[in-house]
Amino acid sequence: MKLTCKQQDLSRGLSVVSHAVSSRSTLPILANILMTTDQGRLKLSATNLEIGINCWIEADVQEEGTTTVPAKTFSDLVNSLTQGQVGLTIPEDSTTINVKSERSNANIKGMDASEFPLIPSAEGDEAPIILEAGQLKEMIAHVVFAAADEDSRPVLTGILVEVANEKVSFAAADSFRLALRVAPLPGHSDSHSSILIPARTLAELARILPSEGPVQMVVTPNRSQVLFHTDQVDLVSRLIEGSFPNIRAAIPKEYTTRAVVETKEFAAAVKTVTPFARDSSNIARIKISGGGADGQEPGLLTIEATAEDVGSNVTTINAAVDGPEQQIIFNVKYLTDILSVMDTPEVALELITAARPGVLKPVSATEYTYVIMPMSSNR
Amino acid sequence: MKLTCKQQDLSRGLSVVSHAVSSRSTLPILANILMTTDQGRLKLSATNLEIGINCWIEADVQEEGTTTVPAKTFSDLVNSLTQGQVGLTIPEDSTTINVKSERSNANIKGMDASEFPLIPSAEGDEAPIILEAGQLKEMIAHVVFAAADEDSRPVLTGILVEVANEKVSFAAADSFRLALRVAPLPGHSDSHSSILIPARTLAELARILPSEGPVQMVVTPNRSQVLFHTDQVDLVSRLIEGSFPNIRAAIPKEYTTRAVVETKEFAAAVKTVTPFARDSSNIARIKISGGGADGQEPGLLTIEATAEDVGSNVTTINAAVDGPEQQIIFNVKYLTDILSVMDTPEVALELITAARPGVLKPVSATEYTYVIMPMSSNR
Repeated sequence: MKLTCKQQDLSRGLSVVSHAVSSRSTLPILANILMTTDQGRLKLSATNLEIGINCWIEADVQEEGTTTVPAKTFSDLVNSLTQGQVGLTIPEDSTTINVKSERSNANIKGMDASEFPLIPSAEGDEAPIILEAGQLKEMIAHVVFAAADEDSRPVLTGILVEVANEKVSFAAADSFRLALRVAPLPGHSDSHSSILIPARTLAELARILPSEGPVQMVVTPNRSQVLFHTDQVDLVSRLIEGSFPNIRAAIPKEYTTRAVVETKEFAAAVKTVTPFARDSSNIARIKISGGGADGQEPGLLTIEATAEDVGSNVTTINAAVDGPEQQIIFNVKYLTDILSVMDTPEVALELITAARPGVLKPVSATEYTYVIMPMSSNR
Repeated sequence: MKLTCKQQDLSRGLSVVSHAVSSRSTLPILANILMTTDQGRLKLSATNLEIGINCWIEADVQEEGTTTVPAKTFSDLVNSLTQGQVGLTIPEDSTTINVKSERSNANIKGMDASEFPLIPSAEGDEAPIILEAGQLKEMIAHVVFAAADEDSRPVLTGILVEVANEKVSFAAADSFRLALRVAPLPGHSDSHSSILIPARTLAELARILPSEGPVQMVVTPNRSQVLFHTDQVDLVSRLIEGSFPNIRAAIPKEYTTRAVVETKEFAAAVKTVTPFARDSSNIARIKISGGGADGQEPGLLTIEATAEDVGSNVTTINAAVDGPEQQIIFNVKYLTDILSVMDTPEVALELITAARPGVLKPVSATEYTYVIMPMSSNR
């Protein structure tokens, strides 16, 4: 192998694939990055066997070739070099790569590329579904935090992705809340079967995707893996097997009281009560009031937390209230999570009774629903 | 106690004193912040018994008073409030403080102020020494990293501060390197006795000092503590007892070869070899060459690191060399440390032989000397 490329391209490519490097695996080669010349570009690959990432960078290839190098040493070296051309050379019958830049001349010992696990490429049976990178990143951000962290119910650590009726939907749920985000997908009227992608994978995907451009999503023929493909980056992930709960059935269809508040004010109010909720199971009591039929009284949303040993806090913000006074108890963390990704100026909180799930929605045309189970008031 | 102050002043004051809060002490009150009205201002205090910090903020005091509150809860609350006025009230015979802002009304349980350890104030026997905050911060940065981390020789965890002959000097050393920074101090011709201040304390002081203005340094009458005093902040620290090594005797008085290089280039070169030195005791070999008497050849500084299992790197930068070719082996970390705080465009490396200590100095009028012991080449 013999090529030159730009230090900044190589550095960016390494930072993309390094997310999939597995430094603690029992398979030492997974701590390496696979480098392969590929049709006039340099392809960098890494995998931890759960996800695999390929990234292509511009290169001037003089001789084809492939090898693997330790990710940490190689990245540290490349990141320490000044901007400019970097020459990469592997003599024939060698696995040691020579890295030459303006002032520095390094040799790094690698491992044979043939030992590196194969990362599937973009050849699935199904026709790819084309998503827009910016929207995909947003949809991931809107649901990923609601997936369960633990593996006690493995299906809940995944995000359900469904394509049907010219719409794509992303859904996540743990036992206490769920998030559902739906976006139009013109040209996909057929009902594709749904897939369950690990939330960790999608969080990684959101990090490495460019801010715009098309993203192809393809399921492998054996339906065990999904591949996201762009011009410069591929991400392959295993799929989770199992049946995801029917979360649409868990979304309330109606409400008795609805409060519209400024998203930033609500987020700030939640933040001020958090130190007091922390020592009492994160309990915060929410009260919506002032939705008089005459519209004379200003509506209010009050959030209150009390911890025996610490103290208490009551914060009140203005709200446009529709319906009778209503109280409910939520885990304050579930509010913090949603309010930190809600990007519309206003958000609506819809309640039925203190014992029924509450719903948060953006005040916009975006189809985004977040449901929180209430906590019992006698805890 | 009853007062109002600005949220941003209170937040800043809490962030200053929180550095001295000890959340893991067996004395629970050390996790609290002492608040006291003090001549029309609010004084915040915290101590971990090694250092104590007082910080004064502007306040409109309606009733005098004092209490202590849990640092974490109070800081989290104050930082979550929007900018604007904050009212702090403690009813008589209570230790619970009421914190009232535009939208939020909180009560935090405190502990009686009389249990809080006394932090000495600025009344020493000796006349204070007046230093300039910006220069003091710089002097601390120039030496603090060279102090020993461990307590195996407690005196080496301190920084020796000496005032004599119209100069103030800060010195730090571990067993492998030393740093000495000297600055003019007009009006202090008398030889004050030297003091040994924990390096950790001075690192903290550098963080909390304003960027300019006078700083008074006073030693308490019993010579067990030192106090740094500004208009808004006090820091009190214990002193280390014991006798600091005579580091001036360890500084080479001459050199055979001197290389002047660009500080940034040297720092970048050190960074590129670091990944290769990491697995072999941080060893880097430095070679200075090309100091021909005719000045025809360009001088070079080469730095090289090799690790058996990883690979090797050689980086070469231009140097203005005076004297014969010279090689030496340094711990690359000791170069990284000094080059990250050296703020002159050029730095000089002065060597005698491979077995004698090397010296790094800024190319400027600043009196700053850094000595590194060489490593043996047969390691």
